[in-house]
Amino acid sequence: MAEGIDPILRMAAQLARLPGIGQKSAQRLAYHIAAMPLDDVKELAAALWQGRKALRFCALCGNYAEDEFCPVCKDEGRHNGQICVVRDARDVAAMERMRDYRGLYHVLGGALSPMNGIGPEDIRIKELLARLSTETVEEVILATNPDIEGEATAAYIARLIKPLGVRVTRIAHGVPVGSDLEYADEVTLAKAMEGRREL
Amino acid sequence: MAEGIDPILRMAAQLARLPGIGQKSAQRLAYHIAAMPLDDVKELAAALWQGRKALRFCALCGNYAEDEFCPVCKDEGRHNGQICVVRDARDVAAMERMRDYRGLYHVLGGALSPMNGIGPEDIRIKELLARLSTETVEEVILATNPDIEGEATAAYIARLIKPLGVRVTRIAHGVPVGSDLEYADEVTLAKAMEGRREL
Repeated sequence: MAEGIDPILRMAAQLARLPGIGQKSAQRLAYHIAAMPLDDVKELAAALWQGRKALRFCALCGNYAEDEFCPVCKDEGRHNGQICVVRDARDVAAMERMRDYRGLYHVLGGALSPMNGIGPEDIRIKELLARLSTETVEEVILATNPDIEGEATAAYIARLIKPLGVRVTRIAHGVPVGSDLEYADEVTLAKAMEGRREL
Repeated sequence: MAEGIDPILRMAAQLARLPGIGQKSAQRLAYHIAAMPLDDVKELAAALWQGRKALRFCALCGNYAEDEFCPVCKDEGRHNGQICVVRDARDVAAMERMRDYRGLYHVLGGALSPMNGIGPEDIRIKELLARLSTETVEEVILATNPDIEGEATAAYIARLIKPLGVRVTRIAHGVPVGSDLEYADEVTLAKAMEGRREL
């Protein structure tokens, strides 16, 4: 018996694999779920599994999508000549929370990191360049994380794009340096967008 | 769009209903799950749903069980004349982590609380008395929580059982007063068991 019976142990083991949930919280959550009405647990499990299964990547920008294109790319009003380049799809959600930005996105799916063997061909830079030749783009806003890898990625992309005559900007360091874009509050993100400068 | 696309919002909404998971962590978890391999999410959802579905209550002690009886009650070697009375099934897991106790349990499923309209007929006291007349019981160890309701419940049960000539003990206050039994560490719980006193 020891830590509980099998179904509860299996719940706790799975929950403990999630970020920020230690063994003790996983166990507490498992016992909470054990005491939840059957229908509520069904709803929880279905939301996770059906939700994950429903997710795909937008064929244009790489953001999470339910169909071929994400809600941003599907919105004709947002094809305004601006493309905001971010590392992850979750960064799109962070930018959207600001509610100020009305252009499109491009999700790189990572950042350049020679230390970890991640080069330009491992992130969606080629796809970004393709968009610049097929779409009418006036400005590329580089909103990669304000950390070493994010800065390096922004600098690399800026060098590639500037010769094409497209305006390239970098979000201002209103975003606290060394942090994660995902955690920035709306005001800080709005400040960072306002203060963006030519590269 | 705002906070994310529907499947992710639904995941986050469900996760935010769990104890200790706020809106922000729920959203972070949802994005983590969105990025997890499909099979891993399937395993997580299945562990929660199948796990919850597999749970029933032991016909003897009220602990969580997969069959008619829980692993403790099924173990012949543990029918040693001791019954440890706890509030919740999760408290059984806490006691079992101590690995010292070799008797049986009785889960009350609550604590007496006149304020909340919970009386003796609302928790499994009748079932405990029934066990005393059908099983050979030498000692009832009252391990309800060391808070007001737990103490009241212990005192109430002690008054009922002592006339029957059964030894009734209460775990010592090695368990920090005002806390939750579930959070006690193994050593504290062992001390509490050692120092139990006659009521």
